[in-house]
Amino acid sequence: MTSSDQLDATFAALADPTRRAILARLASGEASVNELVEPFAMSQPAISKHLKVLERAGLISRGRDAQRRPRRFEAKPFVEATAWLEKYRRLWAANFQRLDVLLEQLKFDELKAKEKKRERAKR
Amino acid sequence: MTSSDQLDATFAALADPTRRAILARLASGEASVNELVEPFAMSQPAISKHLKVLERAGLISRGRDAQRRPRRFEAKPFVEATAWLEKYRRLWAANFQRLDVLLEQLKFDELKAKEKKRERAKR
Repeated sequence: MTSSDQLDATFAALADPTRRAILARLASGEASVNELVEPFAMSQPAISKHLKVLERAGLISRGRDAQRRPRRFEAKPFVEATAWLEKYRRLWAANFQRLDVLLEQLKFDELKAKEKKRERAKR
Repeated sequence: MTSSDQLDATFAALADPTRRAILARLASGEASVNELVEPFAMSQPAISKHLKVLERAGLISRGRDAQRRPRRFEAKPFVEATAWLEKYRRLWAANFQRLDVLLEQLKFDELKAKEKKRERAKR
C-alpha cells in the first residue's frame, strides 16, 4: 500500500462506531473474537466482518496463540493518521496567525491614517 | 451530531485522496471552487461533490464573500479526530509498557529460580 492508500484504508476503517469501540477495547490488551463479541449486541459474523476491515487496514493483527487467535492493536496507522491531521492543522494555524497579524497591521494603518487626517484638520 | 456521528463523518470524509488534497490546499488559505478545480484533473461537478461531503462533515465552511463563495478550513473536527486517535494510542502505549515490565519481571524470576537450583546442586 502507498501512504495515500494506507490513509484511505485507515480513515475508512475508523468511520464506524463499532470498529472504533473494538480498537478502544484492544488498546487495553489483546482479545479473542469471543471476548470481543461479548460486550457488543452483535452476532459473531458481524463482529468478524468488522475485524476483517480492521485487519486489512493494518489497524489490528493476530497474536501467536493458535487456539485463541487473539487480535491485537497496531499503533503504526494511528501514528500516521495523527501525523497527517496534525500537519494540516498546524499549517492552518500558522496561516491563521499570519492572517491575524495582517488584520492587526491593517487596523493599525487605518488608525494612523485617521490620526493624520485629524491633525491636518486641526491646522 | 453526537460526538460519535461527528467522528463517523470526519473519518469518512478523510478516507479519500482528493478530499485530503482539497483540505491540504485550504489549510494554507481559503479558495473559491474555481481555484480548487484548477490543480485537479477533475470536472467542477466532481469537485463540488467532494466539497459537499467536506462541508456536511464540518471540515470546511463558506466565507463571507457572496460572489466568490470561498471555502475555508475548519480546524475543530481535525482536533477532535486527533484527540480520539491519541487517546487510544496512548492507552495502548501505557499497556504495552506494563507488559514490558511484566516480561522483565518474569525473566528476572526465572533467573533467580535457576540460580537457586544451581546453589542447591552445589551443596
